[in-house]
Amino acid sequence: MRATLMYGAGDVRVEDVPDSVVKLPTDALVRVTGACICGSDLWPYDSMAPTDRPARMGHEFIGVVEDTGAEVTTVARGDLVVSPFAISDGTCEFCRAGLQTSCSNPQAGFWDEQPLEGAQADAIRVPLADGTLVKLPVAADSALIPSLLTLSDVLGTGHHAAVAGEVGPRTSVTVVGDGAVGLMAVLAARRLGAEQIILMGRHQDRTDLGREFGASDVVATRGEEGIAEVRHLTGGHGAHVVIEAVGTIAAYRQSLGTVRPGGVISRVGVPQYEDGPIGWDSLFRHNIRLAGGPAPVRAYAEELMPDILDGAINPGKVFDVTTDLKGVPVGYQNMADRTSLKVLIKP
Amino acid sequence: MRATLMYGAGDVRVEDVPDSVVKLPTDALVRVTGACICGSDLWPYDSMAPTDRPARMGHEFIGVVEDTGAEVTTVARGDLVVSPFAISDGTCEFCRAGLQTSCSNPQAGFWDEQPLEGAQADAIRVPLADGTLVKLPVAADSALIPSLLTLSDVLGTGHHAAVAGEVGPRTSVTVVGDGAVGLMAVLAARRLGAEQIILMGRHQDRTDLGREFGASDVVATRGEEGIAEVRHLTGGHGAHVVIEAVGTIAAYRQSLGTVRPGGVISRVGVPQYEDGPIGWDSLFRHNIRLAGGPAPVRAYAEELMPDILDGAINPGKVFDVTTDLKGVPVGYQNMADRTSLKVLIKP
Repeated sequence: MRATLMYGAGDVRVEDVPDSVVKLPTDALVRVTGACICGSDLWPYDSMAPTDRPARMGHEFIGVVEDTGAEVTTVARGDLVVSPFAISDGTCEFCRAGLQTSCSNPQAGFWDEQPLEGAQADAIRVPLADGTLVKLPVAADSALIPSLLTLSDVLGTGHHAAVAGEVGPRTSVTVVGDGAVGLMAVLAARRLGAEQIILMGRHQDRTDLGREFGASDVVATRGEEGIAEVRHLTGGHGAHVVIEAVGTIAAYRQSLGTVRPGGVISRVGVPQYEDGPIGWDSLFRHNIRLAGGPAPVRAYAEELMPDILDGAINPGKVFDVTTDLKGVPVGYQNMADRTSLKVLIKP
Repeated sequence: MRATLMYGAGDVRVEDVPDSVVKLPTDALVRVTGACICGSDLWPYDSMAPTDRPARMGHEFIGVVEDTGAEVTTVARGDLVVSPFAISDGTCEFCRAGLQTSCSNPQAGFWDEQPLEGAQADAIRVPLADGTLVKLPVAADSALIPSLLTLSDVLGTGHHAAVAGEVGPRTSVTVVGDGAVGLMAVLAARRLGAEQIILMGRHQDRTDLGREFGASDVVATRGEEGIAEVRHLTGGHGAHVVIEAVGTIAAYRQSLGTVRPGGVISRVGVPQYEDGPIGWDSLFRHNIRLAGGPAPVRAYAEELMPDILDGAINPGKVFDVTTDLKGVPVGYQNMADRTSLKVLIKP
């Protein structure tokens, strides 16, 4: 089978690898029919040191179950399934609390941590299949596939940002970042009834889609100028909730500048920094809360899927390019160049 | 009148100053009958640069209204009142939302920011008296005065820590710090029904009082050893809520080590640092939230006071020394030496 391998910054290759197979009784083998390139894949694409032990890439996929271990009960051969970007057993105390990204099972973890599996490939071995996979009630060629594929990461992540930020009907929301996650956060905040949604982003094609997803305002400036504009739009005090969907320290500082006293900064962009301002002048003086983390998208599938199935939301619009596996290296480059928003892969 | 002045680290003096008087129609003049030395007063007592423009000290007091401006309507001459450590108008959008510490009135702010007033004094001019002061339904010599005085800061601050941490009946709580605020946080968490309350502190007289206030466990070790002990006591994963009642970066790191995935670190110790770890390895990986800030104790007075009046709680036990104004400099030194827990001042 073929799989996507990253050998270093800017060096993504599609190569033949040993076929994935069921190894444990709780495994499933899934033939991938749809996968994605994620904004978070661009961090190593930008900075990974060259290696001769390349990383297997891809953590979002839909596919057809081809084989299952003896203990798998919730999915069967022929089922169409979607996988969250994290593996979880569905039974530990964290899974039961809806925090599947902190599943305590030794086999649990992120797809990105699996050395021998990745979703940008022909097939994938899924550990803890009963806890991880979600069965889809459509055919593999359904027009809803792009939207259902967003359940694997970006839609659930945008939703998590809004939930962690406690977005509700009387909430003003600022979303920092117009990537796929930022746009999904706009959609999720709109879905949860936010009164005002300000999208901060500089790419007009993306912010136009953001308006379609429910942004009430777009702020294209950054730094002090962007902060001033958001404050002006929110009556002088900033937004109740700022969703930080980038992951840079600059985006975090932008969030500090645009959040209102007593408000929340909800982070879902993977932080590319460890230390940041949290003292009197930043968070403490005005009781600003900091929330967020890797989204337990598995917890949200049952809530979000019906809205996709009945057409209430159309998150699949974030995909602006579809390619086969051969086109994946170019897809990385285009996303890195910001000429593609998000690439859908049909192996 | 006499007032307490800080001229630098370790240099606290009680001196004659011009009498405080009503200046604005929204002011009240209060004769102080009870005040406190606060743990937060010890930060400048430890590190303030010598100055010939000394700071007026004290932000917690009970007293009798002696005079009011023409526009004051909620308190009158002869009323016994308690003041929060922050001045607020009670009418702005933040006050109405219960965040009086972020009151947007230009006269609002912390007592510690007032250059010409302080509570460790014979009298004090109270701006925005209607919003700031809370009338007490007891006599000035009531046995309940010490407990009612804690409404000005430490009880409300401990309560805020528990509220910001979302403490409830099924919550495990770790309190870092056995000072007055830490002990009040124990009392508040118990009052809100916490299932388990672990108090981290090294002073046995204080942790004994913590047990009396409701701590189920005491951990006297710190660093990795203390973290391991808390994890052991909480089934291996840490506490749902960690209340950080110290303000040092070491206490924050202790909190990171003892909080559970999906949990909250609620800070009420004034941070003596600006930058700290908040990235993947600290907060983000396991969706740890960071909450807290200066407590809007004004918001909590009506909720907490009845429990004091009917004897359900006895927070006044945190005062282990009572002194007059002359004894204030020694009181600072004793609190700095940790031979006093909290000093009550009867001018």
